[in-house]
Amino acid sequence: MNTIENYSKMIEKEIAAFSFPTSPANLYDPLRYFMTLGGKRMRPMLTLMSAKLFHKSEAESMYAALAVELFHNFSLIHDDIMDEAPLRRAKQTVHKKWNSNIAILSGDVLFVKAYELICKNPTHLIPALMQVFNRTAIEVCEGQQMDMDFETRNDVSSDEYIEMIRLKTSVLLGCALEMGAIIGETSIENRKALYDFGVHLGIAFQIQDDLLDLYGNPEKVGKKVGGDVLANKKTLLSILAKSKASEEQITQLASLQNEQNEDEKLAQTLSVFESLQIHDHCKIEMSKHYLFAMAALSSMSDSIASQELEELADYLFHRDY
Amino acid sequence: MNTIENYSKMIEKEIAAFSFPTSPANLYDPLRYFMTLGGKRMRPMLTLMSAKLFHKSEAESMYAALAVELFHNFSLIHDDIMDEAPLRRAKQTVHKKWNSNIAILSGDVLFVKAYELICKNPTHLIPALMQVFNRTAIEVCEGQQMDMDFETRNDVSSDEYIEMIRLKTSVLLGCALEMGAIIGETSIENRKALYDFGVHLGIAFQIQDDLLDLYGNPEKVGKKVGGDVLANKKTLLSILAKSKASEEQITQLASLQNEQNEDEKLAQTLSVFESLQIHDHCKIEMSKHYLFAMAALSSMSDSIASQELEELADYLFHRDY
Repeated sequence: MNTIENYSKMIEKEIAAFSFPTSPANLYDPLRYFMTLGGKRMRPMLTLMSAKLFHKSEAESMYAALAVELFHNFSLIHDDIMDEAPLRRAKQTVHKKWNSNIAILSGDVLFVKAYELICKNPTHLIPALMQVFNRTAIEVCEGQQMDMDFETRNDVSSDEYIEMIRLKTSVLLGCALEMGAIIGETSIENRKALYDFGVHLGIAFQIQDDLLDLYGNPEKVGKKVGGDVLANKKTLLSILAKSKASEEQITQLASLQNEQNEDEKLAQTLSVFESLQIHDHCKIEMSKHYLFAMAALSSMSDSIASQELEELADYLFHRDY
Repeated sequence: MNTIENYSKMIEKEIAAFSFPTSPANLYDPLRYFMTLGGKRMRPMLTLMSAKLFHKSEAESMYAALAVELFHNFSLIHDDIMDEAPLRRAKQTVHKKWNSNIAILSGDVLFVKAYELICKNPTHLIPALMQVFNRTAIEVCEGQQMDMDFETRNDVSSDEYIEMIRLKTSVLLGCALEMGAIIGETSIENRKALYDFGVHLGIAFQIQDDLLDLYGNPEKVGKKVGGDVLANKKTLLSILAKSKASEEQITQLASLQNEQNEDEKLAQTLSVFESLQIHDHCKIEMSKHYLFAMAALSSMSDSIASQELEELADYLFHRDY
């Protein structure tokens, strides 16, 4: 997809050119390191694409796009501390390469840098941009807290799980798109449509992630199949399974949590999931949000050419598995 | 001082009325707890006083005042993690009462709440408020990083130390005052004068803190004398002593770091400091910044009635010792 590649290159170039001060080195070296670890840069791309719908150039929407990307990276740096994650994009996380204190503080600075970028937009747009950005930042924190709370809970419902992924990951996609729409100075209705498109796309994308972990083609997904099951991670699959299982199956799933033989654990879990049609239930939930996303897009006034966004959604959702 | 007490009550009332969401409880309970631990509320008071100089009511400057106080508390919550501090205002710190992850995340949310408060100001003032606030937030992080870096360095100069306290603590006083001036819609010159007043007052205040720790009246200071010396903490006193000491005294100070007898350690350190006139050198440095602060105040155009600010400075600097 040429367009997506072009956007991606543009964003990488801007990030590479982004200059952090040299001193204190322990504050800014981690940011130089982390910001260039790569990633799909999907969020800033959404901002650029959204603004483009309203005939605003990439130059006009780049500050907002970068602000979203910086915020995303700030939240990754802090989440990695909380999750004790050693690796991010196959490289050491900031708290591993330096230490937790440095990761906390350099994360904080990156967050302020995101706000600085927002303030580089035309003055009359700043209040609206700030409003969406602040609300989203708070929701992302709430989602991360819910995720941490879920670790010690055994009664998480699928609705709660969807709400958690909505907050933790999806609203930021909505925010990225809405910020582009604000820069495009379009109607409140179009802003809302693009926001909803992003949120539902994000939820669908996360459900797809849960599905791919167990049912994906390992060559295309790029990691071992069943990692979530082996780690006893709460996913939509495991939550739905628990809610639909018979008492006997609940006991079986509970004892499988302690199964040491990985092949056995995967095979038995898959067998329970199959009898409960977990794959199909998840796929229905995913499709529902994908359709909500598409409906939001087509609700936009004046049949705005949103081919690029549809292509992006398509691109994100045609990973075979 | 009646005026200061009035301001203080007004601010406490607003903070008590500040409502955080109930859920997720692990995100917002720590904030409800920490924000009501008290403190002098000096920073928001400066914002209210500053705006008052330009005939703006407390109602008009309260959002900015609270934003500064929330930011200050955010930075305390994160600093307490980094410093592994068990207590803050004689109560458990957030990371002790809950855990580090919760302290990181609730700190992050508090930071966003500060930005939300800034955005409640009249639209045309938001860009200027944001600019000062962002710059200050970054500087505070830089100061905290410098402070952490100093822990493992043996060659910190007094200039570097003053720069560290300027960034870590003093610029926020300047910011508090400048935000009041922005709300007052006064000239750039007055904004700068008030900012400089705050920064130099802050530096003088920190130096006074270093002095009081060793030379203060324990009954008035409210803590044991010499805590910094006993903890081998880098202060302006210890840094100046090192820079002025003879080779013999440097050796003596170095070996005193390992002295287990506290009375002996204090007595010998005091004796070295006395021979080097450390108290006087520090007091000169403190007075210099106090005078800079007063000069900034009197540079303000139209001889604006700044009696309240002078009284506040007076109040802060007449703690006997």
